[in-house]
Order: sequence, then structure tokens, then C-alpha cells
Amino acid sequence: MDMSQPIVVVLHGADRPPAMGPVEALSRVRYTNAGGLWSALNGAHALFVWDSRTPVLARVWDAADSLRWVHAASAGVDNLLFPGLRDSDVLLTNSRGVFDEPMAEYVLGLVLAFAKDLPTTIRLQQRRHWSHRETERLAGSRALVVGTGPIGRAIGRKLGAAGVIVSGVGRVARAADPDLGDVVPMAGLRSALPHHDWVVLAAPLTPETTGLIDAAALRAMRGTARLVNVGRGGLVVQPDLIDALDSREIAGAAFDVFRDDPLPPSSPLWDMPNVLISPHMSGDVVGWREELVRRFQDNLERFRDGRPLVNLVDKRRGYVRGGS
Amino acid sequence: MDMSQPIVVVLHGADRPPAMGPVEALSRVRYTNAGGLWSALNGAHALFVWDSRTPVLARVWDAADSLRWVHAASAGVDNLLFPGLRDSDVLLTNSRGVFDEPMAEYVLGLVLAFAKDLPTTIRLQQRRHWSHRETERLAGSRALVVGTGPIGRAIGRKLGAAGVIVSGVGRVARAADPDLGDVVPMAGLRSALPHHDWVVLAAPLTPETTGLIDAAALRAMRGTARLVNVGRGGLVVQPDLIDALDSREIAGAAFDVFRDDPLPPSSPLWDMPNVLISPHMSGDVVGWREELVRRFQDNLERFRDGRPLVNLVDKRRGYVRGGS
Repeated sequence: MDMSQPIVVVLHGADRPPAMGPVEALSRVRYTNAGGLWSALNGAHALFVWDSRTPVLARVWDAADSLRWVHAASAGVDNLLFPGLRDSDVLLTNSRGVFDEPMAEYVLGLVLAFAKDLPTTIRLQQRRHWSHRETERLAGSRALVVGTGPIGRAIGRKLGAAGVIVSGVGRVARAADPDLGDVVPMAGLRSALPHHDWVVLAAPLTPETTGLIDAAALRAMRGTARLVNVGRGGLVVQPDLIDALDSREIAGAAFDVFRDDPLPPSSPLWDMPNVLISPHMSGDVVGWREELVRRFQDNLERFRDGRPLVNLVDKRRGYVRGGS
Repeated sequence: MDMSQPIVVVLHGADRPPAMGPVEALSRVRYTNAGGLWSALNGAHALFVWDSRTPVLARVWDAADSLRWVHAASAGVDNLLFPGLRDSDVLLTNSRGVFDEPMAEYVLGLVLAFAKDLPTTIRLQQRRHWSHRETERLAGSRALVVGTGPIGRAIGRKLGAAGVIVSGVGRVARAADPDLGDVVPMAGLRSALPHHDWVVLAAPLTPETTGLIDAAALRAMRGTARLVNVGRGGLVVQPDLIDALDSREIAGAAFDVFRDDPLPPSSPLWDMPNVLISPHMSGDVVGWREELVRRFQDNLERFRDGRPLVNLVDKRRGYVRGGS
């Protein structure tokens, strides 16, 4: 097959990727939204999933007659790991690395917002009300980071640099990890939860991690602890979270991701005290779109040249292996 | 003079200091608010200024017939440096050290709140509105910390640990300071301002620093920069600040201290976009009151024994010397 001008389908939502000139010079690009994907896939060699939130690919998979590679403009690939793609020879790559440091800063910001009671400060300011309160020290508090991939590691380093004592939860237990301290295996999550002030979710969504934080896990957390989720909404059983917040089993939650994304206006989470809702933006610093396109372009050059792709997802595990 | 049971006046506001048992065992304590200070000072040997915001001491100074020592339950002592006390032999000590690390965490929280647009997120959440935005990287941005005392140093270390490139402004210039990087003298402030994304005020209020941030200084700042003040309100010419925010000469401000404390409800600052107002609480972590009393108690034991007091303020300079 001549790969000097591969056919690339770009699956986009409301916004197209920016700065596609170099990609267009390397390939024949077909832009489409979800509705046009079925016909666009015909004869295409590569698919650039710019809108990673749509589950449409599973439904039109039979049209992928020439597809050899799918690249996700995201770190999580849970929407792409349906049986058709997973069991095929089609390669899957992701954008591992783009979001790590921005997300770690975001998590540190959320944690400090809780410790320093910043949401209350902002609400009091709206009422022009001066009300002194005491705040919490961050240094010396304990965080449990669930997920030992590059995002979890960046979070561990960032919190550690701010004086937080960090532990981790991962597939494999290990002691004295440089980024995450003592790492317990997933099976040890429940017994680790009571010993932490912050529980930060940064794991991929896989069959093993779906619903990881359920009623029993929330009950195991400290009453003073806060749950931060920048991973995937499906890591948490949302009704159980709402119950735990309602009954003050935990002291607060900051969520950037939700099973339903965007979070519908009818969700009770919006109005709950001590809950911070942000619109799936934790990793999206100025320039992130351009960086995502550069990552795809780099892999496209490799694809064209027949060189190995970077950030190849282990489709059985659901994430890029190595360093975790 | 028999100092085995010195007479100590405690000047308090609405709240008295907690956990005074050990102090009461060491001395004869007279509790008073501002109204009773004049008569309470008669024959007193030491004054514990628990309410450091009242300027009453200057007005009743003539009643201090036996006073040898004034201790402030604060880091800033600007309210106490009136000519009567300054030119006397009365010793002045402060609570240097109690607030350093809490304030540094608070400043990091404010800076991250701006970088990650957290105030907007909270306001949108109140309207149940999901609106994705791009955020800023904190690492690699540049902060200018005005004040090279222990609070400024703690801020420099904390921001530096989060990847911020830190410079300082102090009385004495020096290069490659371990906490503050390159430190320029006060006279170099204006030329340093255009090179920073964050300007953090943590200096004592002295004749040299009063009104340091005026219209010209604000004009020198980057249009994208934010001003953070955890020092003293008088460091900034407040009408100039309001003008600079109004005309978008700077991108935002977070103020924890104001010349009028509490900030009156009529102030236009409350409603300004990109302004964060907090009620003089940046250093006040859970347990701070008890810690302040312990610091006084430690110095009281020294006073009774005739040993040198710690955290002795250089009354001509307006702060404790050493390490700055």
C-alpha cells in the first residue's frame, strides 16, 4: 500500500483542530463530524479522533475497511476500546504527556482552594461580606493518588513539592516510589482510604477501575477528606457520591469529569455545598489544541515512514504501558 | 523591680486570647479592650497586643508609666511604631514565624486560582452553566516578591517549588538568593515590574514602603499580570489600584489586607471583575491563636528571667532584623 499520501479522517465536534497545515501536507485529510464518519471512513488509513467524547466509532466500525491506525487527541481512550477496535489489528495511540503538568497544577489549585476555603471567600465577596475564618495547612496533609500513569505521577510530584505526603494506588504495589511514595495495589484501596485527607482520581477508565469509588469506598474515607476527580466520571458511582456528600461522610469533592459530559443542569451536584464542578478543562492550558495537533503530526510522519508509533495503547489494558 | 509576677496587660478586641493558663501562672494579667487601656496600663510592665488592628496605644501612651515591653500577636507592627513607643526604651517584639508557611500556601492558592480561572468556575457553577475555558500554566511564569523577610522568603520558596521563576525586592540587592533568586533594591522596583506575571506584596509597612504600588508602578506592570497583597493595605495606593483595574492596566488583583480593615461594604473593589477580596486571613490556620499565645508565653518567661527576648523589632526599621 502506498503510504506517501495516506487518507486521514479527522473526527471533530463543534470545533476543528487548528494549525492543520503540516498534517494536510502529509496526507489527504477528510474532516467530518459524527454524522459523516461512516462514509468518511471508507478507504481511510488513519483516524484522528479530535472529539474524543463521542462514542460514534463503535457504531460505524464496519465501514473501517482500510483503517490501520486510530489516534486520540486525549489521554483517556475508554470511548475507543470497544470490541471491534480492541480485537482488531488497528493500532491505537493517544496524547499521553500533553496534559500531565497542567492537570497536576489544576489539582494543586483545587486542593489549595479547599484548604484555604476560597469558594466561601468568593461567595462572601459577592455579598460584600467580611467574615474572617481559619484555614487549613496543606503541608503535612496526606494525599492518595489513584493512578500511577504519567498524570498521576505529575500530580504526586506537584503535591509533594507543596509539602503534601503522597501515597499511590496502582496496578502493582511498590514502596518508596519517587513520585508517589508507597503505592498499594487496587485491591488495597479500601484500607488505604481512611489514612488520607485528599483522594485524587487520575486513573484510566477500564473494567477494573469502573465504579472504583462506591458507597463502601466513600464510607472508608475520613469525614474531613475531599475527593478530587480529574480522571473519568465513571471511576465514581455518582449516586453514591451524592449520598456521601449529603450525609457528610466526606467533607467535599471537586470534579472535572462526569459520566455524563457535560453534566446536565438537573444534576444535584451543581448546588451541593463543598462541591466544585469544572467543565472538563483541568489539562487544557492555552496552546493545548496546537500541541495535540503537533503530537498527531509527529505520529503521522512515523506512520507514513513505516516507523513505530509513539504512545501506543495496550488495548487489553486500556492505556499506554511503561512507567506505570 | 521584682519581676517574679510582672503585671501584663492584654489588649483584646471582640475575642480574648485562648489558653492563657500558663501566662496567668507567670504574671498578673489585666484583660482590657481599647476603651480600658488607659487605666489598665497604670503600673503595668508588659503589654500583649492581641488586637493588633487598633491604633489606641498611641493615644494612651502617657499612661504607660512602668511599661518595659510590648509584644504584638502579629508580624506587622506598623500600628505600634508611633513616636512615643519608637523613641522610648520600651522593647517591642512580634510574632515573626507563625504566619510564614500558611501565608505562602495562601499565596500559591491565590495564584493558582487566577491561573486556573477558579473564580469564574465557581460563578458559572452557581448558574449550573458548563462552559469550557483554557487555563494558564503556572510553571515558567515569573513572580516578583516584594519583601525579603521570612514571609516573603516562604512565599518565594513555595512558588519556586511549584515551578514559578521568582525574583525579589528588598532593602539590599543580591544575586541568586536561595529563596528569592535575584533580589533588586526597592529603588529598582519600577524597572523590575514589567518582567513579571505576578507581583506579591509581603513587605512591612514602613515610611519607605507606604504607597509603594502607585499609579506609575501599576502602569509598569504587564497587562496580563496580577497583584497579590498579603502584606499591608498601605503598601498600595488604593484609588490608583481601582483605576488600574478599571482601565485594565493589570489583569487582576487578590487582596487580603486593606488600609481600612475590614474593607467597608461601600468599596468598589468588592464587585470588580478579576478581584479577589479575602478578610485578612492568609496566615490564620487552625491553631494560630494558640500558637500566638505560646510565642508570647515563651517571651514572657524570658522577660521574667531577665533573658533576651526573641523577635525583637528594630524600631527604626520597623521589623525584626536578620535574614533579610
